[in-house]
Parts: sequence; C-alpha cells; structure tokens
Amino acid sequence: MVFTTSKPLRFGDCDPSGIAYFPSYLDILVGVLEDFFTSLGFPWRAMNEVRRMSVPTVRLDLTFRSPGFQGDRLDFALAVRAIGRSSLDLEHTVSRGDTVLWTARHRIVATSLDTNTSLAWPDDIRAALTHHLETAHAHHPAT
Amino acid sequence: MVFTTSKPLRFGDCDPSGIAYFPSYLDILVGVLEDFFTSLGFPWRAMNEVRRMSVPTVRLDLTFRSPGFQGDRLDFALAVRAIGRSSLDLEHTVSRGDTVLWTARHRIVATSLDTNTSLAWPDDIRAALTHHLETAHAHHPAT
Amino acid sequence: MVFTTSKPLRFGDCDPSGIAYFPSYLDILVGVLEDFFTSLGFPWRAMNEVRRMSVPTVRLDLTFRSPGFQGDRLDFALAVRAIGRSSLDLEHTVSRGDTVLWTARHRIVATSLDTNTSLAWPDDIRAALTHHLETAHAHHPAT
Amino acid sequence: MVFTTSKPLRFGDCDPSGIAYFPSYLDILVGVLEDFFTSLGFPWRAMNEVRRMSVPTVRLDLTFRSPGFQGDRLDFALAVRAIGRSSLDLEHTVSRGDTVLWTARHRIVATSLDTNTSLAWPDDIRAALTHHLETAHAHHPAT
Repeated sequence: MVFTTSKPLRFGDCDPSGIAYFPSYLDILVGVLEDFFTSLGFPWRAMNEVRRMSVPTVRLDLTFRSPGFQGDRLDFALAVRAIGRSSLDLEHTVSRGDTVLWTARHRIVATSLDTNTSLAWPDDIRAALTHHLETAHAHHPAT
Repeated sequence: MVFTTSKPLRFGDCDPSGIAYFPSYLDILVGVLEDFFTSLGFPWRAMNEVRRMSVPTVRLDLTFRSPGFQGDRLDFALAVRAIGRSSLDLEHTVSRGDTVLWTARHRIVATSLDTNTSLAWPDDIRAALTHHLETAHAHHPAT
Repeated sequence: MVFTTSKPLRFGDCDPSGIAYFPSYLDILVGVLEDFFTSLGFPWRAMNEVRRMSVPTVRLDLTFRSPGFQGDRLDFALAVRAIGRSSLDLEHTVSRGDTVLWTARHRIVATSLDTNTSLAWPDDIRAALTHHLETAHAHHPAT
Repeated sequence: MVFTTSKPLRFGDCDPSGIAYFPSYLDILVGVLEDFFTSLGFPWRAMNEVRRMSVPTVRLDLTFRSPGFQGDRLDFALAVRAIGRSSLDLEHTVSRGDTVLWTARHRIVATSLDTNTSLAWPDDIRAALTHHLETAHAHHPAT
C-alpha cells in the first residue's frame, strides 16, 4: 500500500556529465507528491485556490547511491511514516529495476497561503492520510 | 573566508503558492558550487572535458526555515567542513538580510566521467580546497 | 497519424501569476519530441551514445493563445511537415480539451556531437520519418 | 541605450549533448526581462502583488545559430521595437563575445491577474517604456 508510480528520466533532466541533474530529480519528486495527493482526492490546484493552503517542504534528507541515465524508467515508492498536527513525514525510494538510485526522508507542512504559517491538517485530508498509513501497516506489519 | 555570493530569486523560481519552488533553490545552489570551484581556479567545463571528472552530490540534508519570495536577494555562504580522499563536505547557509531562509549539509564526491566511480581529488584541487579550509580556520578559529 | 501524447501540467510548471511558466512548457515539449523519436524506434540515449548525434532546435516560432493552469491535462499533437537533408520541420498543437493553448513551428537539425555540425539523416531514421509523413498524408489527405 | 546584461551559462543549463538546453536559455531570458522591468523602476513582485498584473509572453520567434557551452558568458541585448495599447514588442540578441548564439522576436502583453485578460499599460509604465524607446532611437537613429 505504499504509493508507487513511474516517471521517465529525460534527456533534459540530465547534465553534461551524462547523468541525472539532481535538481531535476527533485522537480520530478514534487510531481510524485502532487500525484499522491491527487490519488487521495486532493489535487493541489483546489487545495491552493479553494482552501488557500499548500504543503511546502521543510526538511529533505537525500542520499544518492547510483547515477541515473537519460531514458531510465524511475520507479518511485512513497511511504507515509508519521502524521503530525500540521506535518507529514514521508520516505521515498527511487529505483531503476532492482537498483536503488536514491532515497529521501521528507517532511512537509500544511501551510496557509494567506499567512505563510502552519495550520492543522483539515479533517478530510487527515482522515485520508491516516487511512493510507493504517492500510499500509495492515499490509506490511513489519515496516 | 567562507565563500560568499549573492543571487536573485526570480519570478521563474517561484511557484503558484507565491514562494520559492525548492527544486529551483537547488538549481541555484549548484551554480553557487560551480562559482566556488571557479573561484579556486577549477571551472567545471575544463574539469569535465580535460580531466574527465565531475563532482556529483551524494548526500544533501536540507532544512527550509522561512519562505523566499520573488525579488529576494539570496546571500549564500559556503563553508568547507571536511576533505576526504574523494569526498568534500560542505555547509551552506542561505539568507535574506538577517533572516536565514534555509541551510544544507552537502557531500560531493570526485567522480570519473568514464567509469562513474569515485577518484581521489587531484593534488592541485586538494591543495586549493585544503588552503581554503585552513585559511577559513585561521580567520575563524572557533568555527 | 499525427503523433499525440498527453502530459500533466504540474504545480512546479506554474509561476506566481498562477499560470504555466512558458520555459517549463518547452521543457515538456522536448520530452514530447523525445517520445516521438522513441516511438519511431530511435531513443535519444542510443542516438547520443552510439551514433554520436543529437537533434538540436534551430528555429522555434511560438504562439501562446490561452493560459494553462496547474492540474491541466495537456494534449500534444506533433505533425511532421518536411524532411530535409539534415533538417526536420514539425508543427505542434497543444490543447486542453477543445481549447488550443499554444502552437509551435519547430525545426530541428541532425547534428554530430563530435563536430557540432549538421549531418544527413541516417537512412533508417530518414525512412522512419518519411514513413510517418506518408502515412499521415494517406490518412489525412487534406492536411 | 539598448538594455544589456550578462549571465553565465551554467553546467546545469546544459544537456548530455554538452551544449545549452534551450528551455534553460528561455528561463534565463525571462530573468533578463525581469531585470529590464526592474531597471525601469517596476519590479515584478510589486507589479504582481500591488497592481495585480503580469506580462506573459504571447509570441516568441527563436533562431538558434550557434551552440552555447557551459561556462560561456552570455551577453543579452534587449531592444524595444513597438509599444501597443497592452502589448510590447522586443528583440533579443544573445552573444558570446563576437558570436551571436541566438536571437528572438518577443511579444508580451500586460495582463490582469484577476481576469487573465489584457489591460492597457498603466501610464507610468508606458511612459518609462516610451522614454526607453525614444532614448534608444535618439542614440541609434539608424536602428
């Protein structure tokens, strides 16, 4: 029940050394996070415009293990680790086939677009995140 | 003797929530690292093409404290923390005036473009990095 | 027989004015062109590394008609218009549902990575492009 | 009296073929346009937030003549060609030393952030653009 999705690594995501340019990896990662929220029923455009909230990143610890090359298929696995009042802790694993390319621990915070300060997760978003976390634990009790 | 430089945060670096898009911050950070190597006498084009080496990022721990806005002047301070056989540990502090916006601990590794494996820092680059580190310590003995 | 594909317009592709940032559109467009070559049997990584060639853009005339918003599904239609010795003329139409958002006339040129000068299309790539163009005309004689 | 500025072409702006990735050129170009408005006294953050207007691109005709390489210094020259009710026609020339790398004809339109429709240039912005255009003609009568 980890959220998974695949993305191509493109020519334009790579640099003159021939491997993935890591800021492009993070642009792709934000798209994966956006897909995750959409999969829960909360596309960001409505979150931004109707609820006047966003989910900026406050911590991100990245480990790059193996280089990615143009044309690779990147398999993303996103796991929810903890849900706070306004924070959400995630763990990402990004692989090409059996090879883990990079991993990340990631904290985002629900934030008001009007005040740029944190706010408690709205009940419906919290419920969806909690359901996702509990379903994941039920299926993978050892994680 | 910390390496410092300033960069504008542009309209195109910000997102629909009105604040800096963090992958754009990291694109700017790579440019700062490139400027640092140029300041030591080692522009990346020659490193890539003549020496057949690059300096990919293997670890990056990011903490975002306060949002950046379009038009902000970002002051970057890059400090060398440790020089290994093929690695280099850096610490970045990014501020707008007196406000620290974000910080990073950053490890890069000297890497062969031909084999994609690490290589020892060439003597002249090691000497320049060591000189930079020692000069910094001489001027800021408490750091 | 026009080549078509869809791409999401992401939060990170939009700017503080709330609409698509046009350089991000062009990053997406390069990915569409990459997909087109892959669909013909010529993924760019092999073209770059084995044949030592690339297909840089030499002309691009863009008309932006209507703004795109985060979360939009962009429908790309790529048509081959003319095949020269080393050039390829394309036309792109990018829509959201029935609304054309932007169009482009686009010329790329087969180029040697070793000399940065143009080269004639290799026979197999020319044959695939010609087949694509002729099939398109057979199916859409009026276009 | 053409507006001129220089920008570095960075490692991260180049692609695996070793030359500038053209969408990155356009990201840099938007920054040059932003600098131009700032030089006239109209930074975009205030235009966006106080006046609720932006200046999206509606036409852009690009010609890429010669490849750019990482480490190049790009010299931008921006000339105002015509000022309409809500449009502005610009011409860009981008060079490395004596070599023109690329040129662009560029139309932007003053646009309301609230309605996404065009609006007449505010008087003070029109006056500054007109002054810039007339001063340029006085100094370069043949252009």
